[in-house]
Amino acid sequence: MGVAVDNWADQVRAGDVRAISRAITAIENRDPRAVEILRSLFPSTGQAYLTGITGAPGTGKSTLVDRLAAFYRKQQQTVGIIAVDPTSPFTGGAILGDRIRMQSHATDAGIYIRSMATRGFLGGLASATGDVALLLDAAGKQIVLIETVGVGQDEIDIVRLADCTVVVLVPGLGDDVQNMKAGLMEIADIFVLNKSDREGVDRLEQQLQAMLQIVPVRDGWKPPVVRTVASENKGIEALAAAIADFRGHFQHTRERHSKKIEHWKQRLVELLEARLLERVLGSPQGEKTLHALAQEVAERKKDPYAAVSELLARAGLE
Amino acid sequence: MGVAVDNWADQVRAGDVRAISRAITAIENRDPRAVEILRSLFPSTGQAYLTGITGAPGTGKSTLVDRLAAFYRKQQQTVGIIAVDPTSPFTGGAILGDRIRMQSHATDAGIYIRSMATRGFLGGLASATGDVALLLDAAGKQIVLIETVGVGQDEIDIVRLADCTVVVLVPGLGDDVQNMKAGLMEIADIFVLNKSDREGVDRLEQQLQAMLQIVPVRDGWKPPVVRTVASENKGIEALAAAIADFRGHFQHTRERHSKKIEHWKQRLVELLEARLLERVLGSPQGEKTLHALAQEVAERKKDPYAAVSELLARAGLE
Repeated sequence: MGVAVDNWADQVRAGDVRAISRAITAIENRDPRAVEILRSLFPSTGQAYLTGITGAPGTGKSTLVDRLAAFYRKQQQTVGIIAVDPTSPFTGGAILGDRIRMQSHATDAGIYIRSMATRGFLGGLASATGDVALLLDAAGKQIVLIETVGVGQDEIDIVRLADCTVVVLVPGLGDDVQNMKAGLMEIADIFVLNKSDREGVDRLEQQLQAMLQIVPVRDGWKPPVVRTVASENKGIEALAAAIADFRGHFQHTRERHSKKIEHWKQRLVELLEARLLERVLGSPQGEKTLHALAQEVAERKKDPYAAVSELLARAGLE
Repeated sequence: MGVAVDNWADQVRAGDVRAISRAITAIENRDPRAVEILRSLFPSTGQAYLTGITGAPGTGKSTLVDRLAAFYRKQQQTVGIIAVDPTSPFTGGAILGDRIRMQSHATDAGIYIRSMATRGFLGGLASATGDVALLLDAAGKQIVLIETVGVGQDEIDIVRLADCTVVVLVPGLGDDVQNMKAGLMEIADIFVLNKSDREGVDRLEQQLQAMLQIVPVRDGWKPPVVRTVASENKGIEALAAAIADFRGHFQHTRERHSKKIEHWKQRLVELLEARLLERVLGSPQGEKTLHALAQEVAERKKDPYAAVSELLARAGLE
């Protein structure tokens, strides 16, 4: 490893904001130095507590995350926020939002906010988000909040990175419990009913509680339902308490340990995929061969399985 | 290839419903015979027109798809429907829905409906959906409708399989244009405003048209906006006409050809991933090694990059 990368890693460990930002950019750009830095930082990780916060657009996730971060800061905890929006960079909304959000914490060195809006990573957005979480962990953030729009396998993969998953619902948004993705129901450790001063909150909670009765209880934990009005800073303390309860419940259990192992199995498979694809397709020649084969398949001159065998053979893998 | 599989493929080509269903189950279960059948059927594919129909829960996609299918059947076209819901099998809703939907077409051999609700395919749900589309294509379905909840990378990948992509919106569902995933905006070839007898439809269309003005026109096609009330069978003919227009527009263009090649590039990469992972992790020993390494990484005894190198070395790939 070069001296430059070593210094860079040291700066990240010291919490230097510019070094952290550059490292995240390196991860996003698949800069080979990102791997060197992550390898160097890896032994310093494993200290942060990762909380995933997910919900449909319009549920007020960002405000909730900001208020929660402010709460932790008052408790003298350092906080990192990763806001993931796997839509295209078309609107550029993520970057703009970042700047606006950073302003409210601008004078506080104990908080770091970063949006990840780019999609189409070869290694997957979940994998890149996981790398950023490791980085913030190594940079000494005690709490890492991962905020994501809660739909699709991609986001479920992201949420699986977290130690604790909070699902945010809002009354009257058309996202009532019947329509909620069953996948979300299963991964929620805590439910938040945000904008709970709105009409329909009691009905939503009733529906949710009815649904929760038919979901099997996992490892002795029944997901609590917390009401918040994030814009008025209401219920934030109760949410933090629910997260602390969950953390305490699983602190020393076998379940937590096996969840960590499951997490790393998934991450290793993603890394493996990226590494193998790089081998077969990483050169201009590989890309060209892929294109030529895809053309033959599109014209039904070759079947896709034969084409894949050919790609493997060319890379010396078959 | 065995005689049994050969016969089976012949039955699929003849449109035998039981043979098709068995083959789809084989694809879902990653039965090795699925690959044999698909290889055998591949030269018979490339005839069907694939239309993807996507929209949030509650937009009435299923009804729209059913009505559209009935319309095509009246034109003497054979139809296959793949309903993809990448949530967990927890609620079992997909299978139930299937049965209910099948009943309304029960006496019609020219239509085939299948839900794919399982997630966590090693090769990806998009890939499995693509295989099922090939199968229905080989079975002589002239029109294949792929219906999916329109959010997340997974669904965007599924929609990219299609020749034509229809995005369904509904007034007053909280999914107004501002909240619509930018990714969806970019992939839509046609917009449908369903439940267009509801209040707010004019405002929704205005918003949509305003948004469309800032999206670059692709290949001379400006996405039309079609109003429907699927439950009353209104606007279905106009939608079918818009799809036919789109089909005509791209029938003989270079764009259509390059889209097909892009499609196959993506599919080949997915197949490649699945094949390589199988090689490294496909044995009980591989699975065991992965678990042991994930444990070492979770305990910070090894970094993830070193663990991946070890997996590759054990599979003779490094």
